[in-house]
Amino acid sequence: MKKIFLLLTIISATLIAQKKTHYEYVNPFIGTDNMGHTFPGAVVPFGLVQLSPETDTVLYSYGKVYNPDVYKYCAGYQYSDKTIVGFSHTHFNGTGHSDLGDILLMPTVGKIQLNPGTKENPDSGYRSRFNHQNEKAKPGYYSVHLDDYNIDVELTTTERVGFHKYIFPKTKEAHIILDLTSGIYNYDGKIVWSFIRVENKNLITGYHQTNGWARTRYIYFAIEFSQPIESYQLRNDEQVVYNGFWRKFNQNENFPERAGHKIKCAFNFNTEIKNEILVKVALSGVSTKNAIENLNTEIPHWDFEKIVQQAKEKWNKELSKILIETSEERKINFYTSMYHAFINPNIFSDVNGEYRGLDQNIYKPIKFINYTTFSLWDTYRALHPLYTLIQQKRTSDIINSMIVHYEQSVHKILPVWSHWANENWCMIGYHAVPVIADAIMKNINGFDYQKAFQACVASANYDLYDGIGYYKKYGFVPEDLNSNSASKTLEYAFDDWTIYAIAKKLGKEKEANEFYNRSLNYKNIFDKETGFMRARNSNGKFKIPFDPLSVANQGFIEGNAWNYSLYVPHDINGFIKLIGGKEKLVSWLDSLFTFELPEKYFGESEDVTKVGMIGNYVHGNEPSHHVAYMYNFTGASWKTQEKIHQIVNEMYKPKPDGLCGNDDCGQMSAWYIFSLLGFYPVTPASNQYVIGSPCINSAVINFENGKQLKIIVENYSEENIYITDVFVNGKKLNRSYFTHDEIINGGTIKFIMQKTPNKNWCTDKNSFPYSLTK
Amino acid sequence: MKKIFLLLTIISATLIAQKKTHYEYVNPFIGTDNMGHTFPGAVVPFGLVQLSPETDTVLYSYGKVYNPDVYKYCAGYQYSDKTIVGFSHTHFNGTGHSDLGDILLMPTVGKIQLNPGTKENPDSGYRSRFNHQNEKAKPGYYSVHLDDYNIDVELTTTERVGFHKYIFPKTKEAHIILDLTSGIYNYDGKIVWSFIRVENKNLITGYHQTNGWARTRYIYFAIEFSQPIESYQLRNDEQVVYNGFWRKFNQNENFPERAGHKIKCAFNFNTEIKNEILVKVALSGVSTKNAIENLNTEIPHWDFEKIVQQAKEKWNKELSKILIETSEERKINFYTSMYHAFINPNIFSDVNGEYRGLDQNIYKPIKFINYTTFSLWDTYRALHPLYTLIQQKRTSDIINSMIVHYEQSVHKILPVWSHWANENWCMIGYHAVPVIADAIMKNINGFDYQKAFQACVASANYDLYDGIGYYKKYGFVPEDLNSNSASKTLEYAFDDWTIYAIAKKLGKEKEANEFYNRSLNYKNIFDKETGFMRARNSNGKFKIPFDPLSVANQGFIEGNAWNYSLYVPHDINGFIKLIGGKEKLVSWLDSLFTFELPEKYFGESEDVTKVGMIGNYVHGNEPSHHVAYMYNFTGASWKTQEKIHQIVNEMYKPKPDGLCGNDDCGQMSAWYIFSLLGFYPVTPASNQYVIGSPCINSAVINFENGKQLKIIVENYSEENIYITDVFVNGKKLNRSYFTHDEIINGGTIKFIMQKTPNKNWCTDKNSFPYSLTK
Repeated sequence: MKKIFLLLTIISATLIAQKKTHYEYVNPFIGTDNMGHTFPGAVVPFGLVQLSPETDTVLYSYGKVYNPDVYKYCAGYQYSDKTIVGFSHTHFNGTGHSDLGDILLMPTVGKIQLNPGTKENPDSGYRSRFNHQNEKAKPGYYSVHLDDYNIDVELTTTERVGFHKYIFPKTKEAHIILDLTSGIYNYDGKIVWSFIRVENKNLITGYHQTNGWARTRYIYFAIEFSQPIESYQLRNDEQVVYNGFWRKFNQNENFPERAGHKIKCAFNFNTEIKNEILVKVALSGVSTKNAIENLNTEIPHWDFEKIVQQAKEKWNKELSKILIETSEERKINFYTSMYHAFINPNIFSDVNGEYRGLDQNIYKPIKFINYTTFSLWDTYRALHPLYTLIQQKRTSDIINSMIVHYEQSVHKILPVWSHWANENWCMIGYHAVPVIADAIMKNINGFDYQKAFQACVASANYDLYDGIGYYKKYGFVPEDLNSNSASKTLEYAFDDWTIYAIAKKLGKEKEANEFYNRSLNYKNIFDKETGFMRARNSNGKFKIPFDPLSVANQGFIEGNAWNYSLYVPHDINGFIKLIGGKEKLVSWLDSLFTFELPEKYFGESEDVTKVGMIGNYVHGNEPSHHVAYMYNFTGASWKTQEKIHQIVNEMYKPKPDGLCGNDDCGQMSAWYIFSLLGFYPVTPASNQYVIGSPCINSAVINFENGKQLKIIVENYSEENIYITDVFVNGKKLNRSYFTHDEIINGGTIKFIMQKTPNKNWCTDKNSFPYSLTK
Repeated sequence: MKKIFLLLTIISATLIAQKKTHYEYVNPFIGTDNMGHTFPGAVVPFGLVQLSPETDTVLYSYGKVYNPDVYKYCAGYQYSDKTIVGFSHTHFNGTGHSDLGDILLMPTVGKIQLNPGTKENPDSGYRSRFNHQNEKAKPGYYSVHLDDYNIDVELTTTERVGFHKYIFPKTKEAHIILDLTSGIYNYDGKIVWSFIRVENKNLITGYHQTNGWARTRYIYFAIEFSQPIESYQLRNDEQVVYNGFWRKFNQNENFPERAGHKIKCAFNFNTEIKNEILVKVALSGVSTKNAIENLNTEIPHWDFEKIVQQAKEKWNKELSKILIETSEERKINFYTSMYHAFINPNIFSDVNGEYRGLDQNIYKPIKFINYTTFSLWDTYRALHPLYTLIQQKRTSDIINSMIVHYEQSVHKILPVWSHWANENWCMIGYHAVPVIADAIMKNINGFDYQKAFQACVASANYDLYDGIGYYKKYGFVPEDLNSNSASKTLEYAFDDWTIYAIAKKLGKEKEANEFYNRSLNYKNIFDKETGFMRARNSNGKFKIPFDPLSVANQGFIEGNAWNYSLYVPHDINGFIKLIGGKEKLVSWLDSLFTFELPEKYFGESEDVTKVGMIGNYVHGNEPSHHVAYMYNFTGASWKTQEKIHQIVNEMYKPKPDGLCGNDDCGQMSAWYIFSLLGFYPVTPASNQYVIGSPCINSAVINFENGKQLKIIVENYSEENIYITDVFVNGKKLNRSYFTHDEIINGGTIKFIMQKTPNKNWCTDKNSFPYSLTK
């Protein structure tokens, strides 16, 4: 083993030395156009700060019609835009609803403007035109030239402190605008409160508080300038009732403290002598005192290049966990996927350990770093299983963060979709449960299994939440009592199965039985007549009318019955029996990938669009992410192999509009990472990885346990996509899945590929991924 | 000395045993009608909680005309009202602007109503009719019967936890309404945010955040019920933008967490078996976690009577610091004044020591309790000098609280008018300075004199604040640059003198000279032609037109030139020279007390009203509080003696409308306490108390140093109000003032009184209170 390890190290070292490094393959612009909802700015792995340009800030109005454009700006940036509004410090990676965009700074020259202006008339505000030729993005680094002001901007960051470098022209009228009314998914009223102080000529502190996707969110900040401010304006664009302030002071000029709903500031500098101004912006969810401590601890100097270099090293460490050899294009997509996979969740505690809890109290855990941004309906599928392989320490901290969420929750349940000390209740299911189950099944250390189990059971039994009471009573969620009932029933059943799995492992027979039975609830909504899963009402009858192609009002969320019916990842064999046998499934899948959805069905959901579809199969959204791997459960693995290559080639492109759907906090990326390597966690918590078709020549996975897995793909080419044979540590594998041990213990996996479908590979029932029900 | 002490103890003990105790003389209803702005509810000395009924909640509209009625409800209660809206937990004692009225609870029966309804139609809301015959108030205790619901309410409190006792009728429909939109000086928009959780069937937590007099104020609470809630409604009366909550839950029924701007709740109980429900409500400025800790620490049981008794003991301790013998009526006014003098400032830190600072960060001082509610323009005059005599420990904590305010202030200045971690900038001057100076001059221990001095100097030199920059430049505040300039010039000059006094004491010659010179600035606005102080413009010319009787636009705030010109408390002898001699002052004062102000001048200021005036002398507001004592500086002390009796008799009555003006956080009461005892701190920080005319037969003052001062007034009667002679410890006093040592060292002061003016007493210049300039 040691020899192999050494050899592999030499090989990978050689690979790195000879070519572009993995770091250089990352292109943060991928996904910034159209549907990806990624952002190009500076971030370090799992950092609290995501410092990135906004190309527009779109309002949706209070109490009025929803402005559909706001969806495009979930990450604040659209590649096709021609202007930059400013640089804000918080962004989600690839979400389909949004929030954040906090603490927007914009350097300007000349007349002070405190409104962003419009993209049609950029001169009407502080925004500036820019050109992609003058724009650069690398992990942890971003730069752009602002044409309207002739300012060069460079951005980098640490975990909690954004770092700006502005090269102004030589002028007496250099300004840095701070717009505390700016935000993503903004509306008039979203800013609940803002508070700002000019502590001295170089230091600003403050916070703002928003009511958006997160209902009650606080962002504290400390801003330090490398040059003293010459003068400043802290404006509040609203009428105030009590006049004690305005009777005593001229608050509009050089008055050092303001608070209100509509705070916009200009800090003015003379850049005639020194035209470089550096700005550090530290964030905290706790207090301005902590923001200052974060600032002084993480960047105690003004060496911008040093922080750029540190950010690069942090990314190198993460990116080098999996090194691959494949085409240049795929390398770009792969390392960019690795990059996107490691942005959210993000750290949500300060350097002193303190963080804001879900109950808005301040906590100080002793043993772990607190994380937030849990897009669990998306990420439990492949992103967290990727973490249980190559982010084990963080997985433990993430689960500890979920456990404290459970403890702090007034409902005493685990997170659903949570960010910044808030539960936003987005999407469905209790998918923190499979994340925890996957970690327990894979023996991740560092959290309390008993408490975690308790939290899982409590979450699965919280009747108030989204039809759970009904689900327990009826064995399915009745559509007349709780909408999207079919999707919920299917996902609860899977989640329940993962509780069964850990109950069994932890020797809890009672719960094992209870949740085993619950996990079979998926059968209760299967309609033998149509052959699909269907929404049922509380009277037991299936909802009518039924249209298996429609996403609207069919009891499914962001998917139609054709796709969603396949969601029984914990009992695919049971599902096969239910629908009438393997052949039925094969033809279902075949038709799924080929049937062209009629035009009229598009536009029913933001997340189901033509660009993310192959036939009627939706890759741009999550519920079908396991589907291409289902052929393995029928013996027709070669069809999985074919589809994987098709999806990899059609749905991921190394360009700004190259993502076929929202990256969804890394889930879309995690699918790509697994699939390129040749296997996928179809059933989280099962400890099985279903074999697909590797899209690489070789790979090395470096685990935190010090072990290394080498993947060699012999005879691989764009045409040779079918598996001849698979060897694990030299021994021929006679099944179409890997076990977790085979991966995590390191060693060598060798795929041998061929040009034509190998229709004999793993056709025996015993070689299939096994049925997970008793 | 020891013998005397023993003797006096026996005497006072005997007095107490024989008659009504001082506690029983307190009538919390005094000042609750019309102008006093006091409240009748339960409070312990200097407690964070003031649990009291609101008889109306009046809105003033955003951006619209001010509703004058709101002024009447500064303390939430008007004795003439017929209905009670509910019982809220925070109230100021006697302010002229207001805020607070937080966390309003109201027990009701029958149909759930979440609006207060109107006084004209009480049935339109949750309010109830009541009758004063069924209402009782004692220090730390309040009770009332709610006629509409047949509910008996009793209230008591500790420092941080209000305690309610409700006797409901036997019913299935008993409710406790919690209206988080209710407040004093309220307007649509004042509630910045509210957050509430039903932690379990007995415990509620939450906070709300307001933008009122305090710009950014947080109030956290924990509410515990003695009986489990049967059901509840947490309503939010507003449209919300993000629908993640309402799509998933029915938030209106038994849903345990809400947040928003308009939160109103009903907690429903079945009182058929047990119809007594007790409720504890703990407050914190820091967090709900701290509120719970305050609750469990201060009231770890359900024994209501025990807390009533504890509150009584706390008041007995404070009230017994001065025991007097006088008429029954005066005793009521005196002990009620003592009671009112010890409500504000109030504790603003939690049982664990944590408090919210002015910068909104959380602090934990090691050595002192943090206090807030500093109505300094009012209270520096006599209330704080009263504290330097009989609240020395608290004075030290109060000054430490002011010093941390200075440190946390972005302006780096001491409080002006501050409450609940906010500076509201009400009124004028930097009157924390004389409070600190008075304490330093009187050798109060427990705070850092050097830091305190630094804070005083910084406050006096903060150019941005209210014309100080101009004051330093011109030697007066020019009216054209900063309004109310004459009042400001006079008060700055006095405050400056107090800095001079401590600079001299601390050996800081430079500052002593600087502030001595500044203290003479009052001369710069004296107009020889009219003989009054007058506002001047920056061109040096006096503002025209000039009307010494008008309060409006004359450069004076809440006073006219006739009254305000007399405000040179640090250099009355210098002032006498300026106006042309003693006789001039005597005739000025004589005319002040006799000249009837023409009708047209009333209504110019809320604080200058007929009821608070004697002639043109305004006792209902603060600037003239020293004026009656000024005769002593002319040798006509008998006139002071006469006026004091007149003011005592006319301006203080033992009935709800008995106060002639706002109690102003105890200043009006402190004047009464001093004046009844026979002396007054005309010049805080001077260590002199000018002798007036005692209105008692005897008094005992118990100091914290263990010493006791006995005051004996021989031959006193309502007619014998003129001083024959004064003896200090048996030695005849040949001056018309006491020194601080003569008071604080204890012993005996004997006044001998006579019926006719003793025009020969202290007529020699050497017997006058001395001039304080060099």
